[in-house]
Amino acid sequence: MARYGGIDLGGTKIQAVVVDEAHEVLGSSRLPTPTTGGPADVALAMIAAVREALDEAAVGPGELTALGVGSPGAVDDEAGTVTSARNLPDWEGTYPLAEKIEAAFAAPVALSNDVNVATQAEFELGAAKPFRSLLGVFWGTGVGGGIVLDGQLWEGRGAAGEIGHVVVKSDGRRCPCGRIGCMEAYAGRGAMEVRAREKVDEGEKTVLFEIMEEKGKPRLSSGIWARALERDDKLAHHLVDRAVDAIGVGVASSLNLLDVEAVVIGGGLGLRLGEPYVEKIRTAIMPHLFADHRPPEVLLASLGDLGGAIGATLLAAGKAPAHA
Amino acid sequence: MARYGGIDLGGTKIQAVVVDEAHEVLGSSRLPTPTTGGPADVALAMIAAVREALDEAAVGPGELTALGVGSPGAVDDEAGTVTSARNLPDWEGTYPLAEKIEAAFAAPVALSNDVNVATQAEFELGAAKPFRSLLGVFWGTGVGGGIVLDGQLWEGRGAAGEIGHVVVKSDGRRCPCGRIGCMEAYAGRGAMEVRAREKVDEGEKTVLFEIMEEKGKPRLSSGIWARALERDDKLAHHLVDRAVDAIGVGVASSLNLLDVEAVVIGGGLGLRLGEPYVEKIRTAIMPHLFADHRPPEVLLASLGDLGGAIGATLLAAGKAPAHA
Repeated sequence: MARYGGIDLGGTKIQAVVVDEAHEVLGSSRLPTPTTGGPADVALAMIAAVREALDEAAVGPGELTALGVGSPGAVDDEAGTVTSARNLPDWEGTYPLAEKIEAAFAAPVALSNDVNVATQAEFELGAAKPFRSLLGVFWGTGVGGGIVLDGQLWEGRGAAGEIGHVVVKSDGRRCPCGRIGCMEAYAGRGAMEVRAREKVDEGEKTVLFEIMEEKGKPRLSSGIWARALERDDKLAHHLVDRAVDAIGVGVASSLNLLDVEAVVIGGGLGLRLGEPYVEKIRTAIMPHLFADHRPPEVLLASLGDLGGAIGATLLAAGKAPAHA
Repeated sequence: MARYGGIDLGGTKIQAVVVDEAHEVLGSSRLPTPTTGGPADVALAMIAAVREALDEAAVGPGELTALGVGSPGAVDDEAGTVTSARNLPDWEGTYPLAEKIEAAFAAPVALSNDVNVATQAEFELGAAKPFRSLLGVFWGTGVGGGIVLDGQLWEGRGAAGEIGHVVVKSDGRRCPCGRIGCMEAYAGRGAMEVRAREKVDEGEKTVLFEIMEEKGKPRLSSGIWARALERDDKLAHHLVDRAVDAIGVGVASSLNLLDVEAVVIGGGLGLRLGEPYVEKIRTAIMPHLFADHRPPEVLLASLGDLGGAIGATLLAAGKAPAHA
């Protein structure tokens, strides 16, 4: 009776789950990602998160068959390392993440890219289960993408799926990545916050930063954007609509190239804004879609916030001794 | 000793080849595509082109093992039909092309999309032979694209590879396809001619239309653009540079998604302008390429004008009785 652990390592939170052989969640937990220290501190927090999920699942720490980790940065599963993990404290170099977690649970650990893990989860267990080809779009601080073609994740030479850096306007805004006119320059939550601050400096009124202060947050989280939309904030509506338009253009371009069966919208902002905004994205895709007589299904991610961690348990199952 | 026939059916010309088992060209021919009549007249011209290539190859008309055809329009290989072939006379409906050619040579005929056939040719026999993944970019009247991933053509649900309709500027020019801001709106030879005529109407000087009249052509062919560049025509330089920029943006977006090993530039204009312009495209890709520390190879198509017809012989080999 196999038990798998899955960890989704994010810039703000670490999500862990323990699942059974059918990848049903037996226990889960969520801890804040350390903002100081270094990779070793992050690894300790990851181990603590798994321990909490094990407690909830009533599974002993020695009973895990294998674990999987979805991580940002440059992931090398063979070496068990993660390099230059963006948004994580002092993680520019190469850290042997797998061996640290293996040592804690005496079980093999598989690593992969966080966005690919979340895409695979929606493909195998979530909204895209009925399909053979998929574009996953994860709308959060940035906009990540994952591609499944004919049942297989397409990773290119390791950097495929960067849908956030598909150009939507070649002479447009500068993206946080430094390039000009990327989708993420309009649709990433980070870029949206930069634009909101510019607008406030120009004298525009908005409740966005009031809500941020009320909630005691350092940044405009997805919840703050959602709250501002509920309060019918004009600037929030303007910037979210602009983001939706950029996603529509970038996804349409991607579909013109890939012609996949389905698109799944996830990520912090995608999940928080939900189906009404998936409907807006669906509409925004159409004017730029070439094969518009039979558009793909455009669906909200169905595994929610746990999708990344559940996806990591698929990695774990692939790494389990029986499969070795 | 197998002998294969290959036909590339284009809007202005029909190219035919006869090859041996190694796909070496034994004979070739080129006929203008009929501009009047209908599909049956086009099929007769295709048969005539193969007969000429057979003559040159000193191969008898009954000696072909199989034939392949790369065609525009919606191609159904199983049914042997081509529907709505753009630029071909009165070819809106569905025409049983395969059976007409089969009857003429008493050999099986395989059909496929012209751009995919040309991509496969460069992948298996041309510039992209050393690679496992490829983006083919065919720069002509429009801009067609073909995708090979892990050795296999990726066709999606039949409409993948439409790189000409990847958006480069979401609020930009209207494309001949009716949408806004597609790469082809800037880079397609058709759109470039429209823009050149607008500029002349606005009073701009150019030798483009003089050369067209000297050559007795109805349209600005690739050769005319090349001649005007040689004569250092300012408008020609401006519009070709703008096309190169649009190709750079669209190809970079595509690479950010697909992260393939190589890009091959072909098509009438790509082949005519050659390596100096491939170098310009290489440069235009870089500012928008995400993984710019290791760009892919960007190469000129090496099979030249016969690439489509030679690619069609690969289809033929797949259809040959020994493979059935």
